[in-house]
Amino acid sequence: MTAALAKADLSAAPDLPPAIRAVLAEIDGIAVETEEKVVRKRSRDFFWYSPILNEELTGKSADIVVTPKSEAEVIRVAAACARHRVPLTPRAGATGNYGQAVPLQRGVLMDMQALTAIEWVKPGHIRVGAGANMGKLDAELRPQGWELRMHPSTKRTATIGGFVAGGSGGVGSVTYGGLREPGNILAARIVTVEETPRVIELRGDAAQKINRAYGTTGIITALEMPLAPAYPWFDVLVTAPDYATLLAIGQDVARADGVIKKLLSPIAWPLPDYFGQLKPHCPEGQPVMACMIAESSLESFRDIVGTRGTITLETPTREEAGSTPLYEYTWNHTTLQMLKADRSVTYLQCLFPQARFVDSILEMAALFPDEMIPHCEFIRFGGHLTCSALPVIRYTTKERLYEIIAAHEARGVMIANPHVVSLEDGSRHKRADADQLGFKAEIDPYGLLNPGKMRSYVPVKA
Amino acid sequence: MTAALAKADLSAAPDLPPAIRAVLAEIDGIAVETEEKVVRKRSRDFFWYSPILNEELTGKSADIVVTPKSEAEVIRVAAACARHRVPLTPRAGATGNYGQAVPLQRGVLMDMQALTAIEWVKPGHIRVGAGANMGKLDAELRPQGWELRMHPSTKRTATIGGFVAGGSGGVGSVTYGGLREPGNILAARIVTVEETPRVIELRGDAAQKINRAYGTTGIITALEMPLAPAYPWFDVLVTAPDYATLLAIGQDVARADGVIKKLLSPIAWPLPDYFGQLKPHCPEGQPVMACMIAESSLESFRDIVGTRGTITLETPTREEAGSTPLYEYTWNHTTLQMLKADRSVTYLQCLFPQARFVDSILEMAALFPDEMIPHCEFIRFGGHLTCSALPVIRYTTKERLYEIIAAHEARGVMIANPHVVSLEDGSRHKRADADQLGFKAEIDPYGLLNPGKMRSYVPVKA
Repeated sequence: MTAALAKADLSAAPDLPPAIRAVLAEIDGIAVETEEKVVRKRSRDFFWYSPILNEELTGKSADIVVTPKSEAEVIRVAAACARHRVPLTPRAGATGNYGQAVPLQRGVLMDMQALTAIEWVKPGHIRVGAGANMGKLDAELRPQGWELRMHPSTKRTATIGGFVAGGSGGVGSVTYGGLREPGNILAARIVTVEETPRVIELRGDAAQKINRAYGTTGIITALEMPLAPAYPWFDVLVTAPDYATLLAIGQDVARADGVIKKLLSPIAWPLPDYFGQLKPHCPEGQPVMACMIAESSLESFRDIVGTRGTITLETPTREEAGSTPLYEYTWNHTTLQMLKADRSVTYLQCLFPQARFVDSILEMAALFPDEMIPHCEFIRFGGHLTCSALPVIRYTTKERLYEIIAAHEARGVMIANPHVVSLEDGSRHKRADADQLGFKAEIDPYGLLNPGKMRSYVPVKA
Repeated sequence: MTAALAKADLSAAPDLPPAIRAVLAEIDGIAVETEEKVVRKRSRDFFWYSPILNEELTGKSADIVVTPKSEAEVIRVAAACARHRVPLTPRAGATGNYGQAVPLQRGVLMDMQALTAIEWVKPGHIRVGAGANMGKLDAELRPQGWELRMHPSTKRTATIGGFVAGGSGGVGSVTYGGLREPGNILAARIVTVEETPRVIELRGDAAQKINRAYGTTGIITALEMPLAPAYPWFDVLVTAPDYATLLAIGQDVARADGVIKKLLSPIAWPLPDYFGQLKPHCPEGQPVMACMIAESSLESFRDIVGTRGTITLETPTREEAGSTPLYEYTWNHTTLQMLKADRSVTYLQCLFPQARFVDSILEMAALFPDEMIPHCEFIRFGGHLTCSALPVIRYTTKERLYEIIAAHEARGVMIANPHVVSLEDGSRHKRADADQLGFKAEIDPYGLLNPGKMRSYVPVKA
C-alpha cells in the first residue's frame, strides 16, 4: 500500500520488526509502503551490471519505504530513525550501478522523489529539491535559455540529488569537468540523522561533503547547481577506420575551445553492433564516436573532422518520449546496449593519466584484445583534458576481472571499481574522503545513514 | 563636408589627384569627406602607443573618406578604386594600435561604420554587418541571453569587423581562446577589389583568410560570429603580496572549468597607481588581478582565492555611459592608463610557452626589473591555458626596445611586435599567412587594399 499508513493499519504488516513499527508510529501521515514484494523491488538499483554485485546484493531489501513530501517530513523520518536506531537509506531514481540505493542493513528506504520544487532560477544557477528529475528540470529550464551543466546517461529517469550523491560526472563533463570541480555544485541543504535533526546549508567547497557519498553524509533535501546555456544540440555520429584516428579527432574537437560540445564518446567495434536503431549509421567493423555538438558549432566540427572521419548522422537531439537521444548510447548506457543482448559482459571505470592519455588508452586496448572492448569518454579533469573509460569486459571470473584491474593500475590507469559496494573500495584512492568521514561523525552519530557504504566510519554514539 | 558630394561640388576640393576625382565621379550619392584636416584626423588610429610608429605614421593620410551605407555602395567604391588603381583602406572604430587603419599610400579611406544591420540572431550565433559597434551589439543581444564571446578592451568604441581584421583576441579569450581557434569566426562575407567586384562568402576555416589581415584580403561587409551566454558579470579585483602569488591564483581560477570567467589580468605595481577611480581598491605597492566572474561563480571564485589573496572590489560590471567597466583597465587599456600620466612608456606583446608559462613570466620580469612592468592576460591557446602579456616598457631607444624583444625571443617567448606596421613584421612568425597571401592574389589583383600592410604581397596585375 502506497498511501499514508494510519496507525490503525499496522496490523496489515504484522511481520515488521518492533523498531520499524515504532518508527511508523511516529511518522503518521507520511506516505509509506510496507508490502514486502514492492519494498524489495524498490530496494534495487542497476547494480546487476556487475556480476559480482549482482550476487552480493540480490535479495537485499529495506523493511519499508517512506516517501516524504517535504523537508519537514524528511526531518520527522530522520528523527524517528535516530530515536529507534533504524537504518535509513535515501533513494531516488535508483539509476546507479554500485548499489548506492540498496539498503544493506534493512530499515527504512526513503524515496526522495517527491521533493521536486524549484526554489528559484537565476541566470546561471538554480536551487531545487533534491528529488527533481533531471530530464524534467532541463525541459523546464530550456525556455529560459538554461540547462544543467552535466547529467548521467540516465538523465530521463535520474534525479539531481541522486546524481550528486553518486554520479561524479557525465554528459557535459567534456566542457565543465566532473561534479568535483569547483563551481559544479554550488550548495547543498542537508538534514542530519539525530533525535532532533538539524538542517545544515553547505556552501561552496563545503558542499563537496555530500558529493559521491551515497547519502551517507546527510540527507540531501535541496541543491544549488550551476546552469549552462541551453544550446540547440545536435546528435552526431562520426566513424573512422580505426580507434586511434577517432581518438585523434576527438582530441582535436575537445581541445577546440571555440567549438561547443557536450559529449565525445569514442566507442570501439563491436559495441555499435548492439546499437539497435542506430545501426544503419554504424558501418560494420568500424568504431564510432557519439557526439553532442551545438548547432552553431557544426560547421567548425565538420572542418575538424575533415577527411579523417565520416559523419554518418547529424540530427537535433530529441529527448521527448518515443525518442532515444544519442547520449543513451554513451557512458554506462553503452554497456547496457550490449547487456540487453549479451548478459555475460560487464564493465570497468578507468581514468587515464592526463599527460599521455591517448597512448595509455591504446596500450590498454592492445593488452586485452579479446576481453575488453574500448569505450572512452572525453572529459576535463583538474583543468586538463583526458579520457575516462567504461570499457566493456567479457566476464569470466572475479579473479580474471581483478587481474585486468591490476594490469590497468600497474600502468598508471586509475580504476574506480564498480564491482564493490563501499565508497572506499570504489574510489580511485581506496579510502573515504577525510572531510566526508569527519563530517559524518557530526551529522550521523549513530551510523544509520545507508550503513555499510562508508565502511570505514565508526559510529561515535551507540 | 560629410554629406554626399554631388559631381558639381568637385570644385570644392580642387587639390585632389585626378584618379581620386575620377573615383568621386563614379560614386555619386555615397557620403564623402574631402576636407583635408578632417580626412587626416580620421586617417589615424591608436598607433601612438608606440613611439616608433608614432614617428613613422604621423602625417599619413588618405585623400578622401567615403562612408558607404550598404554593401551595394561598398561594391561601387571598390569598383571605382579598381578601375582607377586607387588605394582603398577600410577603417571602422580605428581603435587598433598598429596603424591598421592608417592609409600608407593615400587614396580612399572607407569608413565601414554604417554597415551595422543584424541579419539574424539564432541561439549561439549572429550574422551582422561588419561595422556594428561591439558595445551596442552586446547591449542588443543581452535581453536575448547572449553576448559576443570576446571583445577588445575598446569594446565600447570598436566594431566587430575591425576586431576580426586586427584583434586576435581579448576579454573572453580566457574561456574561448583567440579568434584563430576553430569556431570563433563562423563566416565572413567579403567584397573583392576588381573592376567588377565579387561578393564571396568564406565559411568555417576559410573565414581565417580575413582574420587579422588588416582588411588586406577583402573588404569585410558581414560576419557570422558565435555567441556566448550573457552571464551577469562581476568586476572583481584581487590583490596579493607578490606577483607570483597572483599568478598562482589566476592559474587555479583559469583551470577551474566549473568557474565561469571572462577576464583574468594580473597587473604588477606600479601600474595600479595609475588606475584613477580604482585606486582606493589597489593597495600601495601590491599587484592586482582584474577579473570578470559570473555572479553564479563568485562563491567558488572566493573559495579558490582563499587566504592567498584579498578581494578589494566585487561589483556588477557596468558598461553604460558614465561607468568604467573593469576591462577598461586591462589588455591595452592598462598601457593607456599609464600613458595618460606618463607619455614615455610603451609596451610589448608576448606569448609565453604553454608548458612553463608561469616560470617564463617570472623569468622575464626578473630580467628587466627597472624597464618592464609585468601585465599578463590569462588566455587559452590551441586548447591549452597560457598567458599572453602586454608589459609596459619604460622606453629609451628603439635599439634598447629591440634588445628587450630579442631577450624574450631567445628565452622562448614569442613576440607579436606592436612597433611595426606590416602584418609580417608584427606576426609571431615574421611572415604572412600563406593562405592569406594566396587569397589576396584572387581578390585584390592590383594590390590596392590597405597597401603596405601585407608587404610581401606582389600584385598579380598592374
